[in-house]
Amino acid sequence: MKVGTVTGSVWATRKASCLQGQTFLVVRTEYDEVVAADCVGAGAGDCVLVVLGATARYYCDNAPVDAAVVAIVDTKKE
Amino acid sequence: MKVGTVTGSVWATRKASCLQGQTFLVVRTEYDEVVAADCVGAGAGDCVLVVLGATARYYCDNAPVDAAVVAIVDTKKE
Amino acid sequence: MKVGTVTGSVWATRKASCLQGQTFLVVRTEYDEVVAADCVGAGAGDCVLVVLGATARYYCDNAPVDAAVVAIVDTKKE
Amino acid sequence: MKVGTVTGSVWATRKASCLQGQTFLVVRTEYDEVVAADCVGAGAGDCVLVVLGATARYYCDNAPVDAAVVAIVDTKKE
Amino acid sequence: MKVGTVTGSVWATRKASCLQGQTFLVVRTEYDEVVAADCVGAGAGDCVLVVLGATARYYCDNAPVDAAVVAIVDTKKE
Repeated sequence: MKVGTVTGSVWATRKASCLQGQTFLVVRTEYDEVVAADCVGAGAGDCVLVVLGATARYYCDNAPVDAAVVAIVDTKKE
Repeated sequence: MKVGTVTGSVWATRKASCLQGQTFLVVRTEYDEVVAADCVGAGAGDCVLVVLGATARYYCDNAPVDAAVVAIVDTKKE
Repeated sequence: MKVGTVTGSVWATRKASCLQGQTFLVVRTEYDEVVAADCVGAGAGDCVLVVLGATARYYCDNAPVDAAVVAIVDTKKE
Repeated sequence: MKVGTVTGSVWATRKASCLQGQTFLVVRTEYDEVVAADCVGAGAGDCVLVVLGATARYYCDNAPVDAAVVAIVDTKKE
Repeated sequence: MKVGTVTGSVWATRKASCLQGQTFLVVRTEYDEVVAADCVGAGAGDCVLVVLGATARYYCDNAPVDAAVVAIVDTKKE
């Protein structure tokens, strides 16, 4: 998983039908930017945990996505 | 998923038979360039959402691809 | 797999229910930082082996994660 | 998928038995070099389309590979 | 697949039980370093072919690994 910060969201009216009702958040990680389906009600500025790849399908009602926000991070202890 | 811009398309006559009838778009993302099967009728200049990896198979009539354009982005709100 | 060093951990109270009870470690690899579910009782400072991608699900009681710490490295012989 | 140029091939006599009879091409993409199983009879200098990841298994008689050349590109229109 | 050179090996006594008996080699590829399960009896200095991702499970007696050395390269012809 990756830790990142929610920087915004993506809106799309023309999309594959299986994506209806899904919220897509823009998450900035250390070296990358990813658009992830939201599973926990995260919002802009939140520090979140993102699951990538085929595993993301297990969250968010089985929608065929390749990234999902699965937790809002309280603390990242170094 | 990744947000990117459609910059062109790829034509190939010699290809695996299961790819017949598929449209392949060239999409430039923040750090990379990917060729993705089109599922939403996107064209050059469109800002799109691309799904990567095994999940891409769930779109575009189950064609064995590793990237698919699944939405045309209206707005990316930061 | 990747070799990395555990640099800390991540705490999250608001998370997908299937992640309850999982410990998440921050692991610094050569070029990247990843958050991985712990399967072997690793702690800060440990040199560990991390499995990435869909294969990570096979460890840690089948939790839907995309990274798992699967070994504590004794020696990395060059 | 990725667009790349075939720059050579790899020969190996000691290999996993399920790889027997497979041709492996070296493909240089924009930022990377990958060795891919050939499914379309490509050769050195050809501009090709490479499928990566688990999806590559669907081509080339189901051989367990993680990259496959699935098309020879005629034109890449920008 | 990736071509790389075996630069060493990793030893771990505390590990997930399904990894018992597996040999882990450190392989340096063009831009990365990966730890891969050995399926062909490779050793330090060998030029090898590494399969990455879920496909690696198909080699090495189905051990849940994300990288496997599947061939020793005789020649890489450019």
